[in-house]
Amino acid sequence: MGAEIIDGKAFAAGIRDRVAEEVARLKAAGVAPGLAVILVGDDPASEVYVGHKRKATVAAGMASFEHRLPADVSEADLFALIDRLNADPEVHGILCQFPVPAHLDERRTVARIDPAKDVDGLSVANAGLLATGGDALVSCTPLGCLMLLRDRLGNLAGMEAVVVGRSNLFGKPMAQLLLRENCTVTIAHSRTKDLPDVCRRADILVAAVGRARMVRGDWVKPGATVIDVGITREAHPDKPGKTRLVGDVAFDEAEEVAAAITPVPGGVGPMTIACLLANTVTAACRIHDLPEPDGLTA
Amino acid sequence: MGAEIIDGKAFAAGIRDRVAEEVARLKAAGVAPGLAVILVGDDPASEVYVGHKRKATVAAGMASFEHRLPADVSEADLFALIDRLNADPEVHGILCQFPVPAHLDERRTVARIDPAKDVDGLSVANAGLLATGGDALVSCTPLGCLMLLRDRLGNLAGMEAVVVGRSNLFGKPMAQLLLRENCTVTIAHSRTKDLPDVCRRADILVAAVGRARMVRGDWVKPGATVIDVGITREAHPDKPGKTRLVGDVAFDEAEEVAAAITPVPGGVGPMTIACLLANTVTAACRIHDLPEPDGLTA
Repeated sequence: MGAEIIDGKAFAAGIRDRVAEEVARLKAAGVAPGLAVILVGDDPASEVYVGHKRKATVAAGMASFEHRLPADVSEADLFALIDRLNADPEVHGILCQFPVPAHLDERRTVARIDPAKDVDGLSVANAGLLATGGDALVSCTPLGCLMLLRDRLGNLAGMEAVVVGRSNLFGKPMAQLLLRENCTVTIAHSRTKDLPDVCRRADILVAAVGRARMVRGDWVKPGATVIDVGITREAHPDKPGKTRLVGDVAFDEAEEVAAAITPVPGGVGPMTIACLLANTVTAACRIHDLPEPDGLTA
Repeated sequence: MGAEIIDGKAFAAGIRDRVAEEVARLKAAGVAPGLAVILVGDDPASEVYVGHKRKATVAAGMASFEHRLPADVSEADLFALIDRLNADPEVHGILCQFPVPAHLDERRTVARIDPAKDVDGLSVANAGLLATGGDALVSCTPLGCLMLLRDRLGNLAGMEAVVVGRSNLFGKPMAQLLLRENCTVTIAHSRTKDLPDVCRRADILVAAVGRARMVRGDWVKPGATVIDVGITREAHPDKPGKTRLVGDVAFDEAEEVAAAITPVPGGVGPMTIACLLANTVTAACRIHDLPEPDGLTA
């Protein structure tokens, strides 16, 4: 037996193709969607991420605008740039690559971005819209997980969903999305008393705690769908000097019990950039009062 | 045996006394907290509610400002009043009594109120702050339930909480508050598959669906604390022509099983106005950058 391995890479490629089609449709209607990325300082990891985003944005036919600011930029100068981008009709999505240097405040930075262009879905305004059933821009990783779940399970109504982890970035918006899909939703976390038992309730088990292999095989209900959002880098056991990525779920064990499971890497990860592009298309449609494409948002 | 009956009326009186003390303290510091209530039209039930609020506000030593607008007031005129109250330094809390006539939009009306003065905690901005761990003004009824639970149970960390009902007004903010208290939180609703079974998990069971006596005694875990938010008016079985209020919980059955339970009436109901006063004090402290009193907010 063994679970179906959910191929997030292939699914994300499909979403990016859908985005490219929608971008072509929008351009034909006179709207060229554009994504602006702000990079403060020269963190090497951030450089890599921003490079991936640029490539994917251009590949989807969208305009990519990169703005690089020195590591010692003042908040006033950063905010002046954000204000300009908020007002720029060619820009439909704005993201500031985090982390920013310590003298800048991430929460204040996100709050400065027009919520209608906050394609990372990180602002308090978008959290409020999500929590009250409004038209939010939804944080990319939970949106990607929702897309994978809908693709595999169809209608999620009535299913027991357990989200382990309650971050603002992932766990809380994931729970809101599953509630919107009419799941019975439990949010578990480090203070949960019998975590294995709580996990065993789940038809849909989403793990996002950042602890390698914490969720064991016997925590998984037979036939469940398991979404592993954790990414921990650890020394490779067989290749000295090399590292590998592992998830929050003990994959080999869970794979024997679950009906379907996302691998790490190659599961949830590739969905994040795909959803950033999808959010930019959604933002462009809303800003221009055009119909939103199906399946690219929550 | 039989459960402890939680006396919401007495507890709410205690909160109102605490509020009155804090109001006296604030006045001594030169800040006189004030609550402005807007009433559109002349709905008799709304008149009664507004009257209760006015009485409680004045009894706590706060200023009460009532603004009555005709049923056919334009949105522009309503918003002009809200803008004036937003700017008025004597006003720390603003609420518009709902329902408003059909030509006005409740969501837009709430959005017009400065979130810092939104003492009903209904705005998208406050929902976002609550969802992201910020300093929200919290919707009064869930805040009242939280106060009752803290008073009875002390530290709620690690407890299994089940909230039945997922309204923006109650269920969703209640779940956020319980999560913030480190409960393991499940949100159940009309699409939940085995609702009795889900309820039986709960150390803390909160029912807010608006269906009389829906939660039966055998849905309650022995020793649980049961909070009944439902209020349904029905014909009195013994007094012809009279009505009575009943909750979402079959009280006589649940009372045999639970460790503690709120009655209807006299449980959660009296907490709502007490929390409106508490929120007005909290808002006044925040607006004037004064320390917030303990125990009057989430």
